Amino acid sequence: GILTTLSQTNGKYKYDYATIPFLAEVFKLIVSSVFLWRELKKSPPPKMTTDWKSVRLFPIPSVIYLIHNNVQFATLMYVDTSTYQIMGNLKIVTTGILFRLFLKKKLSNLQWMAIVLLAVGTTTSQVKGCGEASCDSLFSAPIQGYMLGILSACLSALAGVYTEFLMKKNNDSLYWQNIQLYTFGSIFNMARLVVDDFRGGFEKGPWWQRLFNGYSITTWLVVLNLGSTGLLVSWLMKYADNIVKVYSTSMAMLLTMVLSVFLFSFKPTLQLFLGIIVCMMSLHMYFAPPHMLVDIPPAIKSDPESLVNVPVD
Amino acid sequence: GILTTLSQTNGKYKYDYATIPFLAEVFKLIVSSVFLWRELKKSPPPKMTTDWKSVRLFPIPSVIYLIHNNVQFATLMYVDTSTYQIMGNLKIVTTGILFRLFLKKKLSNLQWMAIVLLAVGTTTSQVKGCGEASCDSLFSAPIQGYMLGILSACLSALAGVYTEFLMKKNNDSLYWQNIQLYTFGSIFNMARLVVDDFRGGFEKGPWWQRLFNGYSITTWLVVLNLGSTGLLVSWLMKYADNIVKVYSTSMAMLLTMVLSVFLFSFKPTLQLFLGIIVCMMSLHMYFAPPHMLVDIPPAIKSDPESLVNVPVD
Repeated sequence: GILTTLSQTNGKYKYDYATIPFLAEVFKLIVSSVFLWRELKKSPPPKMTTDWKSVRLFPIPSVIYLIHNNVQFATLMYVDTSTYQIMGNLKIVTTGILFRLFLKKKLSNLQWMAIVLLAVGTTTSQVKGCGEASCDSLFSAPIQGYMLGILSACLSALAGVYTEFLMKKNNDSLYWQNIQLYTFGSIFNMARLVVDDFRGGFEKGPWWQRLFNGYSITTWLVVLNLGSTGLLVSWLMKYADNIVKVYSTSMAMLLTMVLSVFLFSFKPTLQLFLGIIVCMMSLHMYFAPPHMLVDIPPAIKSDPESLVNVPVD
Repeated sequence: GILTTLSQTNGKYKYDYATIPFLAEVFKLIVSSVFLWRELKKSPPPKMTTDWKSVRLFPIPSVIYLIHNNVQFATLMYVDTSTYQIMGNLKIVTTGILFRLFLKKKLSNLQWMAIVLLAVGTTTSQVKGCGEASCDSLFSAPIQGYMLGILSACLSALAGVYTEFLMKKNNDSLYWQNIQLYTFGSIFNMARLVVDDFRGGFEKGPWWQRLFNGYSITTWLVVLNLGSTGLLVSWLMKYADNIVKVYSTSMAMLLTMVLSVFLFSFKPTLQLFLGIIVCMMSLHMYFAPPHMLVDIPPAIKSDPESLVNVPVD
């Protein structure tokens, strides 16, 4: 977030923003290929499932993201961006629900409460303060806007949960799984650039000619950052889970807001402070071992009297 | 809150507001006397400790409230009323701390988190929305204002915790304890009316002549309501505790805000909705039995093998 803001010139992008995710996918593909190549030289060789029945599952996250982008576009025709941002926090709750339903992970009541509190905490931090524009429009959009917002949250959660399922369904090398994911990711992102070209009537020339137009060192850092984040998320999906990811992104969002106070002299709000407390409590509630949170009654001691009737060996 | 708003005429009080707590104390004193008189006719007679060593403890809550009122007055010279209202939520946390320190009640980590969340939730519901006045002044007051606000929260908590100590320190009849509390309460409130008279130079005549000036049926309902609330709080202090009281008053505050949306067509805010969710979670976290919140590992089963060496009776 901070790098993206820094990469703007007078509040505008001098480069085509759609090229960023494409280059990030290519970056991730290259990094994963290098790592896989290193693994191939070692013994034992990495496990790789190459039959079509497995490979054909890997474009599905890209397809879900494609549908999600279109739903997002449709939602923004009904609601303004700040309402959309507020509704985006629903993703935390839908991720919890799909995580439970599709990955069959059980959560305790306290963990469900923690997930709801995380969504409430991030939303609290985003409540518009007084003096800020476009606040009266909040929750005055037509019902279609909210339905699409909920659909958007479900699709976003589905993509995450499905990716976790893909990464964990077998013991394949993480880098081999990444290569499959990012190959399809690159293709879908390239297709988007081509579609943009056709829509724009090739006014600025084909995408490969204007790929690095207006790129500065900060723009490259944005690409590098997005790519590295993607690789880390993929690692999380394999070795941790979607809930860990949801906490990471929420904490990153709050950290960005705190750093923005110093870097861009944003005014800190009371609601940011309150939101951070709620999220911290939620984090502790979800991950702390139960015995740290509640006083668990000690295990029932065996009554010496009851031992009297034990048959003897 | 709702009755007080309804008792206003064109947004102003036609009566002297300082007479309300005095009459409420007298009302509580009369009700408690009637109940004690009924208890005295029954057998066994109610337990009543009448020695000076015990009675002299009962004016102390009134003294603390007197100091609290003056600190409150001093605080409002430094901070505006909305900042004061926000800081008032600190009382929830200070009550938890004094409850732990003076009444030696142990709280689990989860219960501490619930108390902090209750304070955060009530504060969230009070965050000023856009368009509302006096929001820029929030947290821009001099440091003295905040120090006094914290002192005010401590005094308010101390009065509550001390009253609980008084009510629970022996098995005296609740009504006898009430009579002692409310006699001193009536005297202190009367003294306040007298001081107000001297300060105002008896312009409107002595307090007993203008006691019911401008009273309407709603004003009497305010008195009745304040008195009944007081009796219920006193019952809570004897048979429940300060934390139950803190939850009750917070929930009542939120209910008042929700009812105000319908009764006075206040605009419902996103922060009210978020605050209510946080407070509900907090309520459940504090009061639900631990086994409902977390999956407690089953008690260790006795290993049949270990019974082999049991000495036989």
